[in-house]
Amino acid sequence: MGNTFGTLFRITTWGESHGGGVGVVIDGCPPGLEIDESILQRELDRRRPGQSDIVTPRKESDRCRILSGVFRGRTLGTPISVLVPNEDQRPEAYAEMEQAFRPSHADYTYQAKFGLRNWEGGGRSSARETIGRVAGGAVAQVALKQLFPAFEVVAYVRRIHDLEAEIDPALVQAAAVEANAVRCPDAAMAARMIERIKAVRSEGDSVGGMIECVLRGLPAGLGAPVFDRFEADLAKAMLSLPATKGFEFGSGFAGTYQRGSEHNDAFELREGRIRTSSNRSGGVQGGITNGEDIVFRVAFKPTATIAQAQRTVLADGSAETELRARGRHDPCVLPRAVPMVEAMAALVALDHALRQRGQCG
Amino acid sequence: MGNTFGTLFRITTWGESHGGGVGVVIDGCPPGLEIDESILQRELDRRRPGQSDIVTPRKESDRCRILSGVFRGRTLGTPISVLVPNEDQRPEAYAEMEQAFRPSHADYTYQAKFGLRNWEGGGRSSARETIGRVAGGAVAQVALKQLFPAFEVVAYVRRIHDLEAEIDPALVQAAAVEANAVRCPDAAMAARMIERIKAVRSEGDSVGGMIECVLRGLPAGLGAPVFDRFEADLAKAMLSLPATKGFEFGSGFAGTYQRGSEHNDAFELREGRIRTSSNRSGGVQGGITNGEDIVFRVAFKPTATIAQAQRTVLADGSAETELRARGRHDPCVLPRAVPMVEAMAALVALDHALRQRGQCG
Amino acid sequence: MGNTFGTLFRITTWGESHGGGVGVVIDGCPPGLEIDESILQRELDRRRPGQSDIVTPRKESDRCRILSGVFRGRTLGTPISVLVPNEDQRPEAYAEMEQAFRPSHADYTYQAKFGLRNWEGGGRSSARETIGRVAGGAVAQVALKQLFPAFEVVAYVRRIHDLEAEIDPALVQAAAVEANAVRCPDAAMAARMIERIKAVRSEGDSVGGMIECVLRGLPAGLGAPVFDRFEADLAKAMLSLPATKGFEFGSGFAGTYQRGSEHNDAFELREGRIRTSSNRSGGVQGGITNGEDIVFRVAFKPTATIAQAQRTVLADGSAETELRARGRHDPCVLPRAVPMVEAMAALVALDHALRQRGQCG
Amino acid sequence: MGNTFGTLFRITTWGESHGGGVGVVIDGCPPGLEIDESILQRELDRRRPGQSDIVTPRKESDRCRILSGVFRGRTLGTPISVLVPNEDQRPEAYAEMEQAFRPSHADYTYQAKFGLRNWEGGGRSSARETIGRVAGGAVAQVALKQLFPAFEVVAYVRRIHDLEAEIDPALVQAAAVEANAVRCPDAAMAARMIERIKAVRSEGDSVGGMIECVLRGLPAGLGAPVFDRFEADLAKAMLSLPATKGFEFGSGFAGTYQRGSEHNDAFELREGRIRTSSNRSGGVQGGITNGEDIVFRVAFKPTATIAQAQRTVLADGSAETELRARGRHDPCVLPRAVPMVEAMAALVALDHALRQRGQCG
Repeated sequence: MGNTFGTLFRITTWGESHGGGVGVVIDGCPPGLEIDESILQRELDRRRPGQSDIVTPRKESDRCRILSGVFRGRTLGTPISVLVPNEDQRPEAYAEMEQAFRPSHADYTYQAKFGLRNWEGGGRSSARETIGRVAGGAVAQVALKQLFPAFEVVAYVRRIHDLEAEIDPALVQAAAVEANAVRCPDAAMAARMIERIKAVRSEGDSVGGMIECVLRGLPAGLGAPVFDRFEADLAKAMLSLPATKGFEFGSGFAGTYQRGSEHNDAFELREGRIRTSSNRSGGVQGGITNGEDIVFRVAFKPTATIAQAQRTVLADGSAETELRARGRHDPCVLPRAVPMVEAMAALVALDHALRQRGQCG
Repeated sequence: MGNTFGTLFRITTWGESHGGGVGVVIDGCPPGLEIDESILQRELDRRRPGQSDIVTPRKESDRCRILSGVFRGRTLGTPISVLVPNEDQRPEAYAEMEQAFRPSHADYTYQAKFGLRNWEGGGRSSARETIGRVAGGAVAQVALKQLFPAFEVVAYVRRIHDLEAEIDPALVQAAAVEANAVRCPDAAMAARMIERIKAVRSEGDSVGGMIECVLRGLPAGLGAPVFDRFEADLAKAMLSLPATKGFEFGSGFAGTYQRGSEHNDAFELREGRIRTSSNRSGGVQGGITNGEDIVFRVAFKPTATIAQAQRTVLADGSAETELRARGRHDPCVLPRAVPMVEAMAALVALDHALRQRGQCG
Repeated sequence: MGNTFGTLFRITTWGESHGGGVGVVIDGCPPGLEIDESILQRELDRRRPGQSDIVTPRKESDRCRILSGVFRGRTLGTPISVLVPNEDQRPEAYAEMEQAFRPSHADYTYQAKFGLRNWEGGGRSSARETIGRVAGGAVAQVALKQLFPAFEVVAYVRRIHDLEAEIDPALVQAAAVEANAVRCPDAAMAARMIERIKAVRSEGDSVGGMIECVLRGLPAGLGAPVFDRFEADLAKAMLSLPATKGFEFGSGFAGTYQRGSEHNDAFELREGRIRTSSNRSGGVQGGITNGEDIVFRVAFKPTATIAQAQRTVLADGSAETELRARGRHDPCVLPRAVPMVEAMAALVALDHALRQRGQCG
Repeated sequence: MGNTFGTLFRITTWGESHGGGVGVVIDGCPPGLEIDESILQRELDRRRPGQSDIVTPRKESDRCRILSGVFRGRTLGTPISVLVPNEDQRPEAYAEMEQAFRPSHADYTYQAKFGLRNWEGGGRSSARETIGRVAGGAVAQVALKQLFPAFEVVAYVRRIHDLEAEIDPALVQAAAVEANAVRCPDAAMAARMIERIKAVRSEGDSVGGMIECVLRGLPAGLGAPVFDRFEADLAKAMLSLPATKGFEFGSGFAGTYQRGSEHNDAFELREGRIRTSSNRSGGVQGGITNGEDIVFRVAFKPTATIAQAQRTVLADGSAETELRARGRHDPCVLPRAVPMVEAMAALVALDHALRQRGQCG
């Protein structure tokens, strides 16, 4: 339970940071899509450690293998199994984790839930788990582009710590996001963000921030009126990512300071189509897409693993102690989280697209 | 699809604001719980129209009937069907809705999705749909109190428009919440909020705000490491409520302005138990509860229905037009949304409690 | 849990024989279908007590009300809630059931599972539960006929006790089934079956038999390769009906006495289409329909409730005792089970049709 | 969709006979179970090709690797990923399958559903898919034995073609089943069955038969009243196995020739416990186990792949043709299907045991 996401298009991820590897089974994929490992690898490379000098230097090449579900370059409609072996395991770096719970990690709660835990790493809470999501999201994006040629998902770092870029979601381009290591399309602010991340790291500390994401080219009609609202499934998808603390779409929390007369999106006719003149709805009304850009934001906390000594307790609950991380960690998770956000957004969008086709034709 | 929530304890809601009524089927309920209609009615009365002078004056008594699943005052473990008939239907008030799409409502997206819609009211987007959730949540609360005697869920209005109360979630009491019509436990601020809502209504306008909620008395170990994280399911639950725009838990968006060394919750031993000395984690770490209070916040937009003329388009897409609401509406949804937030939180908590018992004993 | 059936088109049934009524919530229905209560009622009337002199004389009119999901005669795509109130409740007839467990009923197992039971009737094991299925199946049939104009489902009694009719599933017509009270399209054998049922009833006893069902007009391609095979979902659907003991499709158990060379269905070209020259596959190969008639059979045991004294034990487990049924019961469940089999088959077919459209377009 | 089985304890299988391998992700496993590869391998060896002279001589060692979810010999409660690489692939043996549809195989229906197929083998219909089920079932059996120390599942070949053994399910022992290659605990009849299989194979033909299975040591109370009846889930589980044509439990089809007075299982007190004096109910009443042995039977058709020429059509539908199998196949699937039946039965039992614990404690 709990390792599968989606209704018609669904992924099941597995694997810990320490063990034979991590992977995903992608089920319900439309048949006939052109897929190969390079398409997945491109996204996995955006997520992998060691890609720049502001992320963890763990040496994981994260090379994926497709074991099933693809035949001569095309999806069969059967489960696509993707495997990424683990490479850079250093269990000795985690020896202290057997003895004490890392603050603001999942060590204690895993122990409380399961009665045991894989203390040679972060277990299922390791960011490695997200490899399966990114692989699944890459497949979902191919399917979405076939269904909706104008489809595009672009996430980007909007804020690191208190450094916030001014970005118009309607205009942002993927190339600008990939142009720098922090994945902020505002080049000047990106440079300051990179500087901040490095400074914080040198102090043995960490920072968080906010990622914004826009989905373009989806038709009106995806989603459902009640529990499976498009934005509700996005919220679950995003809050299921490690280190997330919040989600908002459209006008979000800020919009709640407006009056209804200011906040409502007037309908208008534009080029013969029904459009809204503003987009405080964030592309979703009553749980269903309205054809406008879907815009949302996700809060990521500062990395819990820091190089400073921290107060904690021994795993047997016998005494308090201090712990100082020795593993190689990200001083800021956001640059690598950008492809994760895009992947989860694509999974939600494709699942709802298939569900819509199933129910309404 | 999309009208069922939960895995082991699950509710299926049905009904529109116009039609025979609304209701819920509650499945997977633990047997032997003491339940009767008065327990459900108490929560439904907190949600119903006409309960105070700052909510819609629609005349719905919202009397519930339990049709199955309860025998001589105890749950059978079989589906509990709850019915609330519709009473105050005035389809004539909605005649214009056949002709034009209300801005920032679901009229247009329903039409886009389904090709038709029940224009005699808000359809499934009506707040009446939440009756089933509140009834289901009332049952869930009884089950949770049996499992965890210290269990308690308390939601309250923290902010209306820009009027924000200072409230300590660790101390807030349900009685203080119910002491005023706006459901803000800070009496002085509550008075100002009520004033603001009345003022805005008199101008034919509306306001939104923020609800905070705390779950107390839940043990460590509820939730799951990956997709079905406790906070991810809370996020989905909250974003599935009408008029919501955002969700955050623990330190939320504000916490992303902190460094890791400031943000981490140190573990300590308190009265022989492992506790955190702060609660920026909001009671959840790695998707699993840690035994601290679970604290989260939900953003609600200003009511879309306002008494001012608004620009929109005709439903046949032939021309632009103006629309002025004639229905009786809430100038601010938050006071009635408080029991909805509590209900959804209780549904998530009970489902995870049963799942935990199922997998881990 | 356990009261919902289906993935995209799904029904949730509720209600006991004693209580406010029984009903169903039908979710995921394609929008725009022409549905009214008379369409449901026609099927419910084939299922209801008192329809002939070989079924239980319980006086239930089983009038259904559609409470939601239909607007001006067309489905909205939102949940359709159907309610059938209970009428003929005689709890006194069941007083002994509080004291002792009826043999081969669910009294004992309900008590073992839930720790309590509604002893004023059969609880969820009552045949009244199937009202919701029949109503749901009626809606599914409308949807299937819209998708596949040649669609037709015809079930019929093939055998009562040891009286077996010779019927060609490829030729049987619904009208012939409805031409007699036992729902066997072989009129001569039907007369003998009716005689047998009456004779057995006069002896305070009961009989079972076998129902056969054919689905026509479904395209090739419905179903799935592994767990959700079309025939696997049919098997679950049928074994979920009360009093069933077995399921087989195509050549069934008898086919296992053949050799592969005798059993295989050769492919041939007929009128330009790929067809099989025989149909031992029963219309399903590898879990997926092949466009031929889908044929299956279901075993129903003799009614457990009989008017003879039977050995049993007291509900408190303190002693053995004897029990003689006083309720009004069916001496043979098959005539009323025919519409239930059709309903469940239609539910499976529609769900797979929508899933196929969702995944493969 | 369709490659996942179970609610709380669930397996997702993947892989084709040709490609990188096959495998399974086992989710929802209780934590702390002692599991290693040898426990899985023991069951996989009972399923693998080449184990005796009456099964296919394909050279697959079927060595499994556990990639995740187990730490130092104990289950973590996280997903257990199991991989079995493919070894003996001879795509040239399948070249003709690109050109023509094999009779009574899934070639045609896959093409109809997905628009393409992996013609280098049986795709997902290959018996190799069942490796994942057997691995999952092995884990389930360990969990069941921990929950219910007396738990035991024993399946065996009861009939090959028309050679039926007389076996008392209450007495049959696993050792007797494993004592011969055909897995029939009646040694004399087993010898005749083996002879029959060899004779049929020498004629280029195949045979089917019937497997019986008994589950012992399960408590009363597992299952659910309506759709998720224990026997309904068993039926789905069994009909999801390749080559199955039917399922019956307890008295099955034969029991429908009895009268109610003959068929009912009287309750009695035995050693202070409530028991039935006969077991025509097959251990399940009203969908819920009653504590007696659970007994069911599954029909398997004769292997579709035979060495004789058969009539079929070209895959492009242009003409009729003849096809003669060149692959290495089983003349009778039943000996290797025995562990599959046990595995699926264990999956159903464990899932219901966890669900029961979740809902009812």
